[in-house]
Formats: sequence, C-alpha cells, structure tokens
Amino acid sequence: MERNELRNVAWNEREDGVVILDQSLLPGELRYVELTDVDQMVEAIRRLKVRGAPAIGICAAFCLYALARQNADRADFRSRFAAFAAKLNASRPTAVNLFYGTRRMEAVLTQHPQAAPADLLPLLRREAQAIYDEDVAMCRAIAEAGLPLLRPGCGVLTHCNAGPLATSRYGTALGPILLARERGMDLRVFADETRPLLQGARLTAFELDRAGVDVTLICDNMASLVMKNGWVDLCFVGCDRVAMNGDAANKIGTSGLAILARHYGVPFYVLGPSSTVDEACATGTDIPIELRDGEEIRSKFYQQPMAPAGVKCYNPAFDVTDHSLISGIITERGILYPPFDEGLRRLKGLV
Amino acid sequence: MERNELRNVAWNEREDGVVILDQSLLPGELRYVELTDVDQMVEAIRRLKVRGAPAIGICAAFCLYALARQNADRADFRSRFAAFAAKLNASRPTAVNLFYGTRRMEAVLTQHPQAAPADLLPLLRREAQAIYDEDVAMCRAIAEAGLPLLRPGCGVLTHCNAGPLATSRYGTALGPILLARERGMDLRVFADETRPLLQGARLTAFELDRAGVDVTLICDNMASLVMKNGWVDLCFVGCDRVAMNGDAANKIGTSGLAILARHYGVPFYVLGPSSTVDEACATGTDIPIELRDGEEIRSKFYQQPMAPAGVKCYNPAFDVTDHSLISGIITERGILYPPFDEGLRRLKGLV
Repeated sequence: MERNELRNVAWNEREDGVVILDQSLLPGELRYVELTDVDQMVEAIRRLKVRGAPAIGICAAFCLYALARQNADRADFRSRFAAFAAKLNASRPTAVNLFYGTRRMEAVLTQHPQAAPADLLPLLRREAQAIYDEDVAMCRAIAEAGLPLLRPGCGVLTHCNAGPLATSRYGTALGPILLARERGMDLRVFADETRPLLQGARLTAFELDRAGVDVTLICDNMASLVMKNGWVDLCFVGCDRVAMNGDAANKIGTSGLAILARHYGVPFYVLGPSSTVDEACATGTDIPIELRDGEEIRSKFYQQPMAPAGVKCYNPAFDVTDHSLISGIITERGILYPPFDEGLRRLKGLV
Repeated sequence: MERNELRNVAWNEREDGVVILDQSLLPGELRYVELTDVDQMVEAIRRLKVRGAPAIGICAAFCLYALARQNADRADFRSRFAAFAAKLNASRPTAVNLFYGTRRMEAVLTQHPQAAPADLLPLLRREAQAIYDEDVAMCRAIAEAGLPLLRPGCGVLTHCNAGPLATSRYGTALGPILLARERGMDLRVFADETRPLLQGARLTAFELDRAGVDVTLICDNMASLVMKNGWVDLCFVGCDRVAMNGDAANKIGTSGLAILARHYGVPFYVLGPSSTVDEACATGTDIPIELRDGEEIRSKFYQQPMAPAGVKCYNPAFDVTDHSLISGIITERGILYPPFDEGLRRLKGLV
C-alpha cells in the first residue's frame, strides 16, 4: 500500500472473512473490523461501515469469495452461494455497483456449471481481485480524464464522499483533485458536510486534509453563497447509478447543488466508472431511491436529541440530478458531454 | 398568555432585569434565565439564547429599560445608557431590528434632553412595551396578509425559524401557517433543519408540532427532492434585513432555497415586519454578513467531533437572496410584488 493509503476492504489471513475499515467511526477512530458471516456483512453495508458505490461492489465480491471458502465442503454450495448473493443484494437499493459485483461473482458459477467448489474457489478469488484491480485502474483513468479540467488555484466544490475510502486508490470525484495534488498543483476545495451522516465532514475533509489538499468544510446550505462569492470554478460529484439519458443518482443534495451550479454558471461534473451506468434505467425515474431511518436526522450523532422525539422525518439517502443540469459525465473512458444518450449508448457498446 | 404560547422575553418582577426562554436548550429543555447585567445580555444574544430578528430587537429594548432602572440614581445616567446601547448593538451585525430597538429607546432620551432619570423611566418602559405590542400586531397583520396564499392541503416549505419564538405571538414566516391552523385549515409543512445550529429542527419543528401542524423535518439538502416530488406549493421564509431593491438577508441557505424554488416553479415568499426593510441599504451587497465560529460546524452538538480537529470551516450565519428570486415580500402592510423598488420606497414613506 502506498503511503497514506487507507485500504477499505481486504481479506483476512485465512481468506474466510473480510476486513473493512469502519468508515462510520471516522475521523475520530481508525478501526478495522472483521466480518465472517453474511449477516455481519449485510449489516456493515447497511450501516455504512463500508460505503461508496464502487467500494460496496468490491466488498460484496470479497464477501462472496470468503463465504464460498467457508462453504466449500457443502453439498448445497451453489444454492448457498446464490442465497448469500441475494442477501448482499438486499442490503442497499440504489448503487448499481453492488449488483454488478455480485453478478460478476455469480457468473463465475454459471460459466462453470459442472465445476466442484474446490475448482471454483481460485476462479472466484481471481474474479473478486479483478473487480478490485479494475476499480483501481478505472479510478486512475477517471482521475486522468478529469485532471485537464483543473487549473492551478481553481476552486472545486464536492458533495458527500467519492474519494479513496469510497473506491480504491484515487476515488472518483476526488480522483482529479488528488492527482493534481500529487503533481504539485494547488487547488482550493470546498466540501459539503453532507447531512445527515456527514460523509463530507467525516470522510472527504479527512481524506483531503490527509493528502495535503486545501479543504474548507461547509454546511450543505452554504454552497449557494460560496458559489456567489466566486470561489467555485467547477463541481465534481460521484454517482451511485447513471440512467441512459444521463440522469445521475447520487447522495441526497446532489440535484440541489446542480441547480445552484446552473444558476451561477458553474460547470457541474459527475464522475464514476462506466459500471455505474445502468442500461436497465432509461431515465432517473427508473432508479429506486433508498429511504433511511428518520433517527439519522433526529438524533444520530447528537449529544441530545435535536428535534422533538415524535416529529416526522423524510430521510431519502439519494436524489437524482436531471441530466439537463450536468455539464459532463466523466468515466474512465473520458468525458461525455450532452446530449448524453448517444454517448452513453456507445459507452455501453450498444451502438 | 394564550394557551401554548411561549413568552421569549419579559421583565423580572422588579423590572431591573429580563427573563428569557433559553432557545439554545430547546427542544430538550424549557428553561427561563434571568439577565441582569449588560454583558450577560450581549452574551445571550450572541449565543442565540434569544434569537430571531424581531425578538432580539424587543429583547434589546427590554434590556435597556432594565439597565436604566438599575442606573437611575447615577449622575452619568445618559452616558451609561448610550454605552449599554452601543454594547447591545455590537452583539450581532445582520438583523436590523436590533438597531431599530435600541435606536427607539435612545430617541426617548434625545426627545427629552432635560428630563431626569426618574422621569425618563416610565417613558422608556412605555417605549419598550410599545415595541413589543407593535410586534405582536405586526405579526398578526403579516399572518393575515399571507393567509390568502394558502389553500387547504397545500405544502409549505420553511427554513430556519421565524415563528413565535423569534418574534411575539404568531411569528412572521410561520404566522400564516399558525393562523391557518387556528382556523381549521390543514397544511403540510416541511421544515429545513437549518445547519449548523438546527433552528429548524429544534425550534420550528417544535413550535409547529406543539401547535398541531403536520410538520416534516428534512435536512437542508433534501429540499430539492421534496420540491421535485411536487410536495411544495410555496416557500415562506423570514428575513433579518431587506434592502431597498428587495434583496433579503436571512439565515444561511435561504438564497439556495430560492434558487431551487425558481427552478421548480415554486413561489418563494419573504415575510417580515417593515422595520426589517433598511433604507440605508440600496442592495444586498450593503448588508453585512455575520461570520461565526467554525466550531459550530465542526463540533457543536455532536457527541464526538464529526470532522478533523484542524479542518477549516467557512461559517457565515446568513446569506442574501437576490430580489430576482423572490416572488413577493409580505409585511404587515400586505404583499409586495416585483419590481420591489417602488413598493419598498412607498412602504418607507419615501414617495
């Protein structure tokens, strides 16, 4: 591992479990936890101990390999494997990478219908490792694709966390920023704190600070003023799923940020690997939006409840940014500009 | 006091101090605190124990009367009174009502240049009480002016707190809502939690819940989705200072909300007494914006620090909503529609 790099998902020594960096404890505590049964794994994804669209795809693949090892001696190996994949798929609904990871692992079994578990294990291990390695390469390519948009001294605003913790190595939205920093370019980054779970405050500010990037944390509602002040030259955000017309699902608040950017004439870029583009979704209305527990707004993280105990909360975890508000979609294959339909179809090899 | 009414500012029994409801402890604790010296008073305003543009104007006037009583026997009564007013004026910079309150109290002294302290006291008491009574009447008039905009079942989104706690009785932005409720009209209100100090979560949700209004608390970054869902028919927000072209300073996040409202075609109304309009400000750029301690973002209210200890924070307490984004300005004299210049000049008796 490189200096300063935090590995978010890895196997334990016996490779019958995964070790994750518990992101829900950052930045106060840097604790690795071991997950050995599927319920722990599902819980870790659901409670955002491991989070970030690419990272949960990798984590699910790593989990499936570890679970396969545990069950290699069982006659019902294949049906158990399918059940584990289904459980992991049910952990969170919005990020398509999760299903991408489990589908690729399940494909190993389908491609070798007669193979015994002992023969499948090395193939499954290789596939999980490939998903990880491809993500590292894709993040690097995304970072390279976004880098030319940056100029020395320019201001970048980002929302939630799409950095190394959410992916592998460079991250998606933070990729060009971290690459610029490596090459000695100074930038000024504004990080939305991203309520309710404060991934921007806890993770993005933490990662950029660690990497020596000039980062300023703001509350989500301050983005309008920061843009009005002329401090933002462009916005970089990640994505959990992109529809075929370019509509992009990302952390709640992203669509509002895009509207502000449009208002102030600030270019708004969505960054993610092409696996995030979902051919099954024609537009953003096809993307399911996760609704989370209102307690995250009402009481989580607070020393004392900050709202009346019974008050209703509406707590969606993501929203959809309309394609008309997006200046470009940056994948490892470069930047797509509107209209997105044709470019996205080409990206997916459909034309 | 009416049933359920919370009195935010009053004199103590001897009238040599003021008693405030400590809003910084709500909704967890309902505690009244007594303020008897000017430093306590300034601190209470600065730390938002008493807050809301009209309420701090009333509080400052009540404080000045109490301080006048304490100092009635002193030869330097007038110079001490001026020093108290200056100290109170320096507590917070944005809301014009503070200066309006102290200026009216100081005018009592100027209008009676020869009067002894003993003769001034009843005049000062009457003036402070008049400021309070006029605020009650103005809030009522604002509520009546805004009420016709509401229809049974309609959705209203509000930011920060401009309810009874911030004013007297009905409040400004919450006035039409509370009045509608009294008259049996059911509405659906969305309250932005309003980071960093959560006045929406702690106070607006608390007040509306108490009044039996259907209120849903959201994080600030969720307003875009709530509007996109078609749940919001109009926005009602308060104001701390309105410039003569209609630019309105209000809690940080208000301008962003107005941009979202414009994007989704949702009417956006600013509500406040005409004392909030400042003739000395031609446009919003003339309004000073208060910058507050970054600790409010980094660590306040949290069980543990939620961002790296040293990370920079940009923590403005207000922003300015451009007049072009405002559908109407509602004062006790009715609704002003754009262009605002002439209407505001008329409101201030300048044409």
